[in-house]
Amino acid sequence: MILNRVPDINDINEASLRIMAYVNHTPVLTCKSINAMTGTEIFFKCENFQKVGAFKSRGACNTVFSLTEEEVKNGVATHSSGNHAQALARAALLRNIPAYIVMPENSLKVKIDAVRNYKGIITFCVPTLEARESTLLEVIKKTNALEVHPYDNYSIIAGQATATKELIEQTPPLDFIIAPVGGGGLLAGTALSAHYFSPNTKVIAAEPENANDAYRSFYEGKFVPSINPDTIADGLRTSLGERNYEIIKKHVNQIITVTEDEIIKAMRLIWERMKIIVEPSSAVVLAVIFKNTEAFKGSRVGVIISGGNADLDNLAWK
Amino acid sequence: MILNRVPDINDINEASLRIMAYVNHTPVLTCKSINAMTGTEIFFKCENFQKVGAFKSRGACNTVFSLTEEEVKNGVATHSSGNHAQALARAALLRNIPAYIVMPENSLKVKIDAVRNYKGIITFCVPTLEARESTLLEVIKKTNALEVHPYDNYSIIAGQATATKELIEQTPPLDFIIAPVGGGGLLAGTALSAHYFSPNTKVIAAEPENANDAYRSFYEGKFVPSINPDTIADGLRTSLGERNYEIIKKHVNQIITVTEDEIIKAMRLIWERMKIIVEPSSAVVLAVIFKNTEAFKGSRVGVIISGGNADLDNLAWK
Repeated sequence: MILNRVPDINDINEASLRIMAYVNHTPVLTCKSINAMTGTEIFFKCENFQKVGAFKSRGACNTVFSLTEEEVKNGVATHSSGNHAQALARAALLRNIPAYIVMPENSLKVKIDAVRNYKGIITFCVPTLEARESTLLEVIKKTNALEVHPYDNYSIIAGQATATKELIEQTPPLDFIIAPVGGGGLLAGTALSAHYFSPNTKVIAAEPENANDAYRSFYEGKFVPSINPDTIADGLRTSLGERNYEIIKKHVNQIITVTEDEIIKAMRLIWERMKIIVEPSSAVVLAVIFKNTEAFKGSRVGVIISGGNADLDNLAWK
Repeated sequence: MILNRVPDINDINEASLRIMAYVNHTPVLTCKSINAMTGTEIFFKCENFQKVGAFKSRGACNTVFSLTEEEVKNGVATHSSGNHAQALARAALLRNIPAYIVMPENSLKVKIDAVRNYKGIITFCVPTLEARESTLLEVIKKTNALEVHPYDNYSIIAGQATATKELIEQTPPLDFIIAPVGGGGLLAGTALSAHYFSPNTKVIAAEPENANDAYRSFYEGKFVPSINPDTIADGLRTSLGERNYEIIKKHVNQIITVTEDEIIKAMRLIWERMKIIVEPSSAVVLAVIFKNTEAFKGSRVGVIISGGNADLDNLAWK
């Protein structure tokens, strides 16, 4: 069953066990030179090494494998142009049920191929939110598949929370954990895991200035949707979900925004010094530390590297 | 003292202990999708995560820390435009002795900065081998520093051998180990470690077709120098060293060459699927597997990823 309430500590512990066989227990890396540059001790939880290249595998597996036989008998469905599409198709394939994926017709070929590789059944639509939602409704009407929302969904949140649970288990006590925020699935999960497993750790969200709906919602105290966000951090263009917003209001300490230049600089630094590929959405967390070195100096900071699905044909700094 | 004979098993064991505090014990990664594409089980020994971004740190540390106080009192010297320059400067800084580095004046700024960062004392020269060698002689005459050749040097070879010693300790029994060959320091070390620690493992060298001096020397049975090699694998442009050639003749099973296109394709695949940055010289090892899938099918193959110092401004596939 998809969870119908905020995940508690047992839900996250169960999610960890449930997905263990299907996702990677990703490493935590450190980088001496970046530590020296920032005066902090940074622990990078590397979800770029996760299945399908992003943390999304956690939520998708947790959701698909927590459903009853009855619930999944007609498969699952979603609309997504990105990592959630792949992650859900992969989880469904592992459970041997169909996954119906609505994708905008201008999706990258590499993403379409990846969904097909996991036997996802794709329906294309014009690239607007309305078309995506109405096409998904049609698909569900026809197939009776169960919709799995990419982030505004408590089972997804519990799945994403397992990354921070692991990070906490893999590191000495952390003063801060920084996670990026787009739809808020990862951030809500991060905040819940910190709250349950390391209550003295402050949770900070990192957001592009150019897609600052979470920042505005958080500080204006009311839900502000994202309108035409224009950021290189493609994973963070989505509007905050409602379930996510409620959890974030309660358990996140601060949201810090950064500019496009700061994101690109941080991304290049990670590639160059750590020799790992991270997507722009992941670089925002390091950009936040560079922008606020005084605030973090001398502390231990865990950061969630959300994924590694960067565009290898168009480098951000070129 | 710099070793004056082919390293034996004790020399390599001692090198491992000697450098332990100064270099990273790098991880061995695997990639399910690349395994599926090739039908082999590949173990990537990730020296791109090594200090200064390449295996060169091993040889430089082993050499500098095996010298007596008397031998190092005037420092060490070399000519290099690349990773050996950084690795030697870093090792010297760790031992608190001067490192005199002769660099061609057209060296990349990022390499010059890295050597300076480790307090290397740079002398620039015009970018020819003659100028590099004569300038180095002058520097040594003036300083009485000890020359540390980047590969034609048994202490360097013993240091590089520790990567394969670790790889063998980190993996189930391997059928093959593939290492790239340029000057032959890494390959000679790889071959010796396989010979001592895993004698049933066959050692294969990977070389660019466009810089095939090792291939020709190996199969023509006489030393053939490299003339104007034109390959993207910048670390493999050097001519094979004499000490290296003798070891390779004895302990390497096969040398396989690959084209520039094959190197670039393999490099991109590693970046895309494994989310790690490897330099072109490292991609040749995977290119060799793709070129000979039948020969490797069903076997366990260890490959040495030599480094991660790729040009992030000029992507090979663009």
